[in-house]
Amino acid sequence: MTRGKIYLFPSFLSPVPAGNVLPALNLELMRAVRYFVVEDLRSARRFLKACDRTIVIDDLHFELLNEHTRPEEVDAMLGPALEGHDIGVISEAGCPAVADPGADLVAAAQRRGIQVVPLVGPSSILMSLMGSGFNGQSFTFLGYLPVDARRRADRLRDMEREIRRDRRTQIFIETPYRNNRLIAELASSLPGQMLLCVASDITGEHQSIITRPLADWKRASYDYDKRPTIFLLYS
Amino acid sequence: MTRGKIYLFPSFLSPVPAGNVLPALNLELMRAVRYFVVEDLRSARRFLKACDRTIVIDDLHFELLNEHTRPEEVDAMLGPALEGHDIGVISEAGCPAVADPGADLVAAAQRRGIQVVPLVGPSSILMSLMGSGFNGQSFTFLGYLPVDARRRADRLRDMEREIRRDRRTQIFIETPYRNNRLIAELASSLPGQMLLCVASDITGEHQSIITRPLADWKRASYDYDKRPTIFLLYS
Repeated sequence: MTRGKIYLFPSFLSPVPAGNVLPALNLELMRAVRYFVVEDLRSARRFLKACDRTIVIDDLHFELLNEHTRPEEVDAMLGPALEGHDIGVISEAGCPAVADPGADLVAAAQRRGIQVVPLVGPSSILMSLMGSGFNGQSFTFLGYLPVDARRRADRLRDMEREIRRDRRTQIFIETPYRNNRLIAELASSLPGQMLLCVASDITGEHQSIITRPLADWKRASYDYDKRPTIFLLYS
Repeated sequence: MTRGKIYLFPSFLSPVPAGNVLPALNLELMRAVRYFVVEDLRSARRFLKACDRTIVIDDLHFELLNEHTRPEEVDAMLGPALEGHDIGVISEAGCPAVADPGADLVAAAQRRGIQVVPLVGPSSILMSLMGSGFNGQSFTFLGYLPVDARRRADRLRDMEREIRRDRRTQIFIETPYRNNRLIAELASSLPGQMLLCVASDITGEHQSIITRPLADWKRASYDYDKRPTIFLLYS
């Protein structure tokens, strides 16, 4: 029997029409899938309905994959694919399996030789890098900065060294209510001529991608409090 | 006067219908832009025609931005934006300003406070990471591996250390005619239980994304010669 494929469906970063950020192919494939593995049930249903109002949610099977899922459950989620059904993976925001639990399902599929098909969609990491003007030939995404003061200081020093030594753009995120504090912290602890790009509400109505030397951020007025934001450093 | 914006238009990685990899918004915006900065004239024209047959190429202005462009010329390319016209940036394949000369134009735009708008499109870096099953919370894109034997050995050792110490996925590329040799080299010089993902012809008809331990790659038969391929290591 032909085995099903695992389709990775990127979702919205911001509430916009599907045609702003998703190719038509995604919607076409989505309409044909009956089995979904999702990070959150409510937001996945809302996403599917926003893509196509005619999708009948009650006809679909959903499995939850999130931080509460045990490793042995992940393998069982591949069952429909072994029986010939395609499986769609949808995460909370952005691209499944990049900075989210979908990666475990993909790894399990790869171990069993099940075909994985990533689809095009919005990624704050990639889009902020495009808009920053920084080096895209060499870059690192670090996820969240450590909270512990000492490990955090070490991380800043490591980032500074990678920028100087390897010309490597550093990309990272922060808990949104600490965004303003992070900018002040970077401006006071790193060289003033180093460049910081602050990219906020990517793809959304209030999208803003601003690159400035840290010395200018120090004097600038801004408010990124609780707004989805990603940060990039380079010099 | 309101200044124009810089739109970053991702192009195809593989010859597919636009609706497979580009959102409708990209095509809508593309139709309204008169000034383009492109990496290669012929392929940019072909790309625009493939997106929309009705686009009249002769009505458009093109500036070339590639490795032969001098830094002082880049700033002048922003002229139309200062006069209120939007500018579209198109690179050879994939996302402008990521691993290509568009980044210089974006950096110049950021220095002058001109708004930069990255659009959604196919990225072999991001899509291979999604399909690999590797850690997407922490990853590095390294561009090409060094050719020099000693620097290359150093790079392999650095990659191994970053995987072990930082749990950081390593993503890199190779000149396509050396793809097969690179896989053999990785399999013979790194631990056999380390995982290699080989992602080839992303978005194309012959797309293949395969993750296996290096010990299995050593025994496997494969041929990626001259095929556009991207490599990822993790354990």
